[in-house]
Amino acid sequence: MKDFAPRDPDFERRVRESFARQRAMETFGAGLLRVAPGAVEIGFEFREEFTQQHGYLHAGVVTALVDTACGYAALSLTEPGTEVLSVEFKLNLLSPAAGRNFVARARVVRAGRNLTVCAGDLYALKDDGEKIVATMLATMMSMRG
Amino acid sequence: MKDFAPRDPDFERRVRESFARQRAMETFGAGLLRVAPGAVEIGFEFREEFTQQHGYLHAGVVTALVDTACGYAALSLTEPGTEVLSVEFKLNLLSPAAGRNFVARARVVRAGRNLTVCAGDLYALKDDGEKIVATMLATMMSMRG
Amino acid sequence: MKDFAPRDPDFERRVRESFARQRAMETFGAGLLRVAPGAVEIGFEFREEFTQQHGYLHAGVVTALVDTACGYAALSLTEPGTEVLSVEFKLNLLSPAAGRNFVARARVVRAGRNLTVCAGDLYALKDDGEKIVATMLATMMSMRG
Amino acid sequence: MKDFAPRDPDFERRVRESFARQRAMETFGAGLLRVAPGAVEIGFEFREEFTQQHGYLHAGVVTALVDTACGYAALSLTEPGTEVLSVEFKLNLLSPAAGRNFVARARVVRAGRNLTVCAGDLYALKDDGEKIVATMLATMMSMRG
Repeated sequence: MKDFAPRDPDFERRVRESFARQRAMETFGAGLLRVAPGAVEIGFEFREEFTQQHGYLHAGVVTALVDTACGYAALSLTEPGTEVLSVEFKLNLLSPAAGRNFVARARVVRAGRNLTVCAGDLYALKDDGEKIVATMLATMMSMRG
Repeated sequence: MKDFAPRDPDFERRVRESFARQRAMETFGAGLLRVAPGAVEIGFEFREEFTQQHGYLHAGVVTALVDTACGYAALSLTEPGTEVLSVEFKLNLLSPAAGRNFVARARVVRAGRNLTVCAGDLYALKDDGEKIVATMLATMMSMRG
Repeated sequence: MKDFAPRDPDFERRVRESFARQRAMETFGAGLLRVAPGAVEIGFEFREEFTQQHGYLHAGVVTALVDTACGYAALSLTEPGTEVLSVEFKLNLLSPAAGRNFVARARVVRAGRNLTVCAGDLYALKDDGEKIVATMLATMMSMRG
Repeated sequence: MKDFAPRDPDFERRVRESFARQRAMETFGAGLLRVAPGAVEIGFEFREEFTQQHGYLHAGVVTALVDTACGYAALSLTEPGTEVLSVEFKLNLLSPAAGRNFVARARVVRAGRNLTVCAGDLYALKDDGEKIVATMLATMMSMRG
């Protein structure tokens, strides 16, 4: 994994403030765990009201967690005053989103002036280790001013 | 758009029963509008608790609506006793998910024995017409037995 | 399908000149058929030297044709002096790329200032009609100056 | 990166024989470098006849290289008598495909009974190291018999 130097020393505060404004994250009960330059982790505890027809976490909620982690991984490398929007993402669902605790981990693959490409995964935390649930490749756009 | 002949005359009941088991759809307040062979529509009314940091509908909830519509478009063409799972999807976000009412529309592009490819869109319903918010291309897998 | 007004009355010449500079299109023997505002068609005749291990057209060549059609659909709506680059695309392969003649058709889904989203398909032309081979959803970026 | 145990001790011969049947790889001048369980590398030397309008390697050829590497990474983990087909892929283009020598590297992310998800990248080999050109997330299907 690549090392990135942040352009804003105050990047973590900026990420945490933006995350706190996401009503959906609050509604899902998701929490921002780790914020590093170009890498973000979000934690989530299973809640039955967000399941699909087989009782697993809904793919849309899986997406919400990984997309949000990708967006903040991108934001962590931007200049002050910049916002980040999702342009598009692709998610592969690798195994049923079963489990009690989950972590979404995202990292910047390439940071450009306007577009940042990120990769992210959702893991279910098990007693005997982690199991990958889904993997995402996403494009984020920086909006200045 | 292609016309498809359902393999199960009772396809609509099967789709509606499965949708009713999706706790996430109930939590989002989403409703199944139209169920035709290979085409499904889901309605959604804006709720602030599912917004991102700018007050628009979160991309994960956009995804949940369009992915669910895609999944049921695929399910509508399967034989009795078949379930459908999302393998993967790609979503392009085309404009901010702003508005009061939304409709997700999905259609089958190609129905195979094991894999079905679907396209879906989310539209914001405005006084002066509809505005496309996002477009998805998705792969669904049929599980028999 | 949407109707688009070109910002450059000379869009077709600009598209055809750029296409003519694509050495890969010449090597594949692909030809630019139709150029309309926001919609482009490319024709291709099967050549054995571009097949994969089962004798069908290689997915990379399928991609080359549809991506190029998407890129020029985007370019057709830009201002003079603008270039277009592919940011990313997703391709679903729907049936074996078998046949003698193929046509790639692309259309703009949404044209933004910097990013344009396009959809494109490859069809095999058969005696009894067309068969869809692959479908793409792509993001293009405009580069000015 | 995960370690995979091959189900066919003769996996490398099977991969190399299939690659040799790909006329497109021969036409592009691409060569199979490394074949390990769940990981494959393909080498490519720049050729002007496969460029796009700015003189860089065409995105379709980039795709051909990475998709082929992904397909053989998947094939390397299958049982004897199995073939692998691309279901779909998404490619992000990260920097211009400029350079003399390239290597496509693919690895299996998750190997399922019917579907295998792979990630792959194209790198340009420079005097001072490697530069990532593109990254892919792909779904492959196993066909038995």
